[in-house]
Amino acid sequence: MINKIQEILAQITLEEKASLCSGLDFWTTQPVERLGLPSIMVTDGPHGLRKQSGESDHLGLNASVPATCFPSGVGLASSWDRDLIEEVGVALGKEAHTENVAVLLGPAVNIKRSPLCGRNFEYFSEDPYLASQIAKHHILGVQSQGVGTSIKHFAANNQEFKRFSVDTLVDERTLREIYYASFETAIKEAKPWTVMCAYNKLNGTYCSEHYNLLTEVLRDDWGFEGLVVSDWGAVNDRVEGIKAGMDLEMPGNGGLNDKKIVEAVKNGELDEQDLDKVVTRVLRLVSRSIENADETATFDKEAHNDLARKVASECMVLLKNEEKILPLNKNQKVMVVGELAQKARYQGGGSSHINPTFLNNALEEIKKEADVAFALGYVLDEDAPNADLEVEAVKLALENDVVVVFAGLPDRYESEGYDREHMDMPANQIHLIETLNKANKNVVVVLSNGSPIEISWLDNIKAVLEGYLGGQAGGGAIADILYGKVNPSGKLAETFPVKLRHNPSAINFPGKEDKVEYHEGLFVGYRYYDAKDIEPLFPFGYGLSYTTFKYTDIKVDKEEFEDTEEVKVTVKVKNVGDTVGKEIIQLYVRDIEACVIRPEKELKEFTKVELQPGEEKEVEFIISKRAFAYYNVDIKDWYVETGEFEILVGGSSSELPLSITVKVNSTVEIKKIFTVNSTMGAIMEHPVGSAIAQQMIQGFIGEMDLSQDDSMGNMMENMMENITLRGLAALSGGAFTDEMIQGLLMQLND
Amino acid sequence: MINKIQEILAQITLEEKASLCSGLDFWTTQPVERLGLPSIMVTDGPHGLRKQSGESDHLGLNASVPATCFPSGVGLASSWDRDLIEEVGVALGKEAHTENVAVLLGPAVNIKRSPLCGRNFEYFSEDPYLASQIAKHHILGVQSQGVGTSIKHFAANNQEFKRFSVDTLVDERTLREIYYASFETAIKEAKPWTVMCAYNKLNGTYCSEHYNLLTEVLRDDWGFEGLVVSDWGAVNDRVEGIKAGMDLEMPGNGGLNDKKIVEAVKNGELDEQDLDKVVTRVLRLVSRSIENADETATFDKEAHNDLARKVASECMVLLKNEEKILPLNKNQKVMVVGELAQKARYQGGGSSHINPTFLNNALEEIKKEADVAFALGYVLDEDAPNADLEVEAVKLALENDVVVVFAGLPDRYESEGYDREHMDMPANQIHLIETLNKANKNVVVVLSNGSPIEISWLDNIKAVLEGYLGGQAGGGAIADILYGKVNPSGKLAETFPVKLRHNPSAINFPGKEDKVEYHEGLFVGYRYYDAKDIEPLFPFGYGLSYTTFKYTDIKVDKEEFEDTEEVKVTVKVKNVGDTVGKEIIQLYVRDIEACVIRPEKELKEFTKVELQPGEEKEVEFIISKRAFAYYNVDIKDWYVETGEFEILVGGSSSELPLSITVKVNSTVEIKKIFTVNSTMGAIMEHPVGSAIAQQMIQGFIGEMDLSQDDSMGNMMENMMENITLRGLAALSGGAFTDEMIQGLLMQLND
Repeated sequence: MINKIQEILAQITLEEKASLCSGLDFWTTQPVERLGLPSIMVTDGPHGLRKQSGESDHLGLNASVPATCFPSGVGLASSWDRDLIEEVGVALGKEAHTENVAVLLGPAVNIKRSPLCGRNFEYFSEDPYLASQIAKHHILGVQSQGVGTSIKHFAANNQEFKRFSVDTLVDERTLREIYYASFETAIKEAKPWTVMCAYNKLNGTYCSEHYNLLTEVLRDDWGFEGLVVSDWGAVNDRVEGIKAGMDLEMPGNGGLNDKKIVEAVKNGELDEQDLDKVVTRVLRLVSRSIENADETATFDKEAHNDLARKVASECMVLLKNEEKILPLNKNQKVMVVGELAQKARYQGGGSSHINPTFLNNALEEIKKEADVAFALGYVLDEDAPNADLEVEAVKLALENDVVVVFAGLPDRYESEGYDREHMDMPANQIHLIETLNKANKNVVVVLSNGSPIEISWLDNIKAVLEGYLGGQAGGGAIADILYGKVNPSGKLAETFPVKLRHNPSAINFPGKEDKVEYHEGLFVGYRYYDAKDIEPLFPFGYGLSYTTFKYTDIKVDKEEFEDTEEVKVTVKVKNVGDTVGKEIIQLYVRDIEACVIRPEKELKEFTKVELQPGEEKEVEFIISKRAFAYYNVDIKDWYVETGEFEILVGGSSSELPLSITVKVNSTVEIKKIFTVNSTMGAIMEHPVGSAIAQQMIQGFIGEMDLSQDDSMGNMMENMMENITLRGLAALSGGAFTDEMIQGLLMQLND
Repeated sequence: MINKIQEILAQITLEEKASLCSGLDFWTTQPVERLGLPSIMVTDGPHGLRKQSGESDHLGLNASVPATCFPSGVGLASSWDRDLIEEVGVALGKEAHTENVAVLLGPAVNIKRSPLCGRNFEYFSEDPYLASQIAKHHILGVQSQGVGTSIKHFAANNQEFKRFSVDTLVDERTLREIYYASFETAIKEAKPWTVMCAYNKLNGTYCSEHYNLLTEVLRDDWGFEGLVVSDWGAVNDRVEGIKAGMDLEMPGNGGLNDKKIVEAVKNGELDEQDLDKVVTRVLRLVSRSIENADETATFDKEAHNDLARKVASECMVLLKNEEKILPLNKNQKVMVVGELAQKARYQGGGSSHINPTFLNNALEEIKKEADVAFALGYVLDEDAPNADLEVEAVKLALENDVVVVFAGLPDRYESEGYDREHMDMPANQIHLIETLNKANKNVVVVLSNGSPIEISWLDNIKAVLEGYLGGQAGGGAIADILYGKVNPSGKLAETFPVKLRHNPSAINFPGKEDKVEYHEGLFVGYRYYDAKDIEPLFPFGYGLSYTTFKYTDIKVDKEEFEDTEEVKVTVKVKNVGDTVGKEIIQLYVRDIEACVIRPEKELKEFTKVELQPGEEKEVEFIISKRAFAYYNVDIKDWYVETGEFEILVGGSSSELPLSITVKVNSTVEIKKIFTVNSTMGAIMEHPVGSAIAQQMIQGFIGEMDLSQDDSMGNMMENMMENITLRGLAALSGGAFTDEMIQGLLMQLND
């Protein structure tokens, strides 16, 4: 097909080139029939196919063909299971292939900067390493089927408020270490066919015309060779977009921008070579799709539904389980309460909204396990408590051994398109839980929500299962976990704060006056709670199991090594309970002393292992430079500062029983330049400078009487540490001349 | 003398002009004997005179003549008493006059950004309004005696770490509302003779050569007509400094910079008119000093010592007083313990360090009240507990009714020149308190420290008196309070956080690699704890009394008014206890809804009143525009957004029982400019735009089927609120042309 591309490029007109820079309509690319170039289809979304069945509309939201609805992004990430995610990807790819869809518009890897972002349910994590690993395997799965992906929304699109206009102000290091990092590994290692640029501005420039973002970072630094597509409606100045490397505008613009492109080339404002690069990338994408198309493709709906159930059960997170009230046993008298048990909330609203092939609900699925009572308890569409429903529920609660309340957020509380303003559940659900808890001590709460909530009612509740938005088979997965067919193994990919205002972006979310400043910098999620010593309700990486795991024997294959070397870390994990279970083992790295501000610790590796009762496995992690590095904005590269690092391993960000210290030596030399504004402290660390500095300081303070009181000596020592060469000269009354200082600097910088 | 200045200017040579731009030595200005211009002396410091008695040295730290040592800045501010501060100023002025000192180098008004700043003891507050009010009256007092002041350190010098080189990065609004504001009112209303520029860089430029800071803000905006002196050793590029308006370099430079100035004028790099401005200001200062000099001036040491004792007793803050254990009565068997009772820590280290005229200590003063036992308890110079001393103390504690422990920070823990790294007291003192508390339930702790500490031992302690650094008569003041001769009335001018890491600058203090970023922005002190909903140990404005005050009847003289009008707020405060006492009544303003990010509430007025038992007073506050305004960076001015404001009044930032809502109408019109990137939400608020926008949206979504599920309607409504005109056009598939949009914008911007 490369030949074909060359052939087309040889014959294509300027107008035809311009036409290829945008879609034909909402979901397809422009064909060039004269040259035999067909149109291909792209469609939503990250956890299931949303291919519109009827007419296209301006927002592409009309009804779609049935497809398997897997758990939403937050759920998928909570599995921390790369293989499982890849299986989901394969299934999504098969469904897309069957529907003749060339590119599936996902995964969505934006960092959960605030728990309020309306689209958090679609996103994976607050941690870029976890998010990028999940994305990588999602992409590998989908693309293994000959269907492309579109990793999105690039970049720093972390809110819905004013998403079309907000200027997102983020410093370079934070972008590299947090907001770009969730894309970087997935793009480098899974090579998505496309990257979708975001709506927002980033540091003053729209992402859709951001040369540094789309060309320098994405292509030059990361080696991305695919196509950049705009988020739908994200294009601002189309000509600037082409210069920046934004290839495909979606949806189509009715030819309006085509004219501007042609004009810009004609009047010399746009170099035709820049346009050719864009056109070539569009042609490559079309060609790749055509080569992979398969009219005969099908998929097995039942098998995919089974997979959706299995995945859902691996995604859910057991947050609390006092007195081992879970799993339930079939002999207990159990009551289920809550409209959400009957009317599952299994996916979020917006572009990811799927028409499922099947749909179960938890109540039905639980009834297959045991004969349970049911009460509605509250009306999901309302916020106010309903006294009649509560009385009915309480009556039943008094007659049963265990009360399982289904609660969570209704659709109207979270969606693409707007952010939440608080983290509360509806008042009627809270009131019901509290009321039931007075009637029955054994209350279990199952949550359906796409993002963290404030849980004021936790204290006397026996168990809480975070079901997230579990997809079409989520109800079955809940039943499986409640009755112990599946031992829960999900862990939080995000922090649940005690209070909304504790969250790192609380003061600066969602911004004002068309801008949002990321003043918390690197300190997103657990990085912030660590730094501020604010205890969260449930920490990142946390999740319970029906069994217990014990960590021992951390070892490294070398204790001191260069930043170009890999190091192998092994730990032993044993299932010391009596139930088979899976554990997510997390490895964090802490820079013990750094010359830049760094988080207390950062996730650098993880794995999920299954262990039989009594079984012990040795788990091995290989980590290398990046695990120890920070992004050095001066050298514009990742950099490891020579020194000691602590490697911490355990089952949650807040419980890391194993640790070992290693020394990493940098192989990159950064020359220190001394100036008149260097501190005497810095000069004293220099082999030549030390003696001279000592002499200067002695000459300077020698005449002073430091015996006046205790504080003088201390002050002097510290003052000399912090004073600059210039400051010392300025205080010397002319004793240190410019010539003397320049001479010293020459020696230091030699 | 104006004539004399003109005369001198007419005859002075370029070289002589240059010489006037810096000092003769450490403490005096250059004379020009040929023209009859004498030298004047300037000297430290803010809470007492530090005039060197012996030879000058490079840091000016050698022994000084005796002077009255008043409580340090943190203490003075805790009095919240404008009149009292003015009295202190008068006393300082008298002492300076007596010693023939022309300018006293203070007050120091830098904001307490971090509790760790080594110089916090010299600074007043975390709140700019309080700091500037205290500074204003300090200056008025000193200058009433014909002695100048030097308000310092201008600006944003909020740490000692790398103070000679650190680049302090602060956004403009934060500078105006917080860091400049602590200077602004004092400079405008008390007109200090001089302002001292800080060591640090501010947003990339050294304060000593910062034109915007020293000329645009200080002189053009605020109308400052005095002289700017460098902090000692703060000059970087002297010629740039002259251009920026930095008049007097201190200390002298041995002529090195004089040459550079002469050369710069000769080679045209420096405009001689800029130099003349500087020289004129130096001449004006010298002339002013000479006119006010009085060789016969004296002061009354005893009277000043009495004043120091009175002031100290008004500065101390009673933090806890369970079961009204304080005041003590003379019949109780009391034991005093702790080396700090004997060896008072009454001032901080560094340039403010004074040689006191008298010095009392708390133990002696307490013994004048009652016959108390004493044990040393710990060694102040050590950190480790001393078992022998503890055993001795415990033995005594068992025999007494009440144990009064003197604890706090030794000199080595805080000083000018270096910052603290933690907020702990020495381990031996904590251990002693905890040990004594096991032996005796009635433990009272008296603290001597210049800045907040973490108090882990608070729970079972009956009372805590924060004595700060109480000056030479602080010991007597403590005795007065302990035995009820004085009812404590100080309130905290700073927050005590539970943990160091809770403080607003925790992540970004003191910065790394020669820069510190003020990412917390406006959210300093209580503004931060409010915004983050983090409960402090003791809040800003908090302090107990031996009596109780009741607040009632808040009233305003108008409920709606323009931003050019004043409003009168009255409240009634009653002493409902049986002891005479003083209450500090605080008024805060909250902007109920704002288009910019604003703190939850801000201190805008306060007063201190004395009330007899049962007495009630009506207190009146007049507030105006500034109390409601924020600094609008677009119009470069203070701006009140039309809307409702809540006025809150009470005795602590966390206890404001009275509130009333007013409406303020702006008289400043800011025209809103609509662009293609304006949101439809904003357009819908426009009188003309509304109908057109509605029509566009209807045309756009009319074809869509929003009945698919509940979330669609919500999403659509919010999406339309946030979408931009450009975004809508981009999604319209060419239905909205550029011409249509430009037409609409013309109507909107008409």
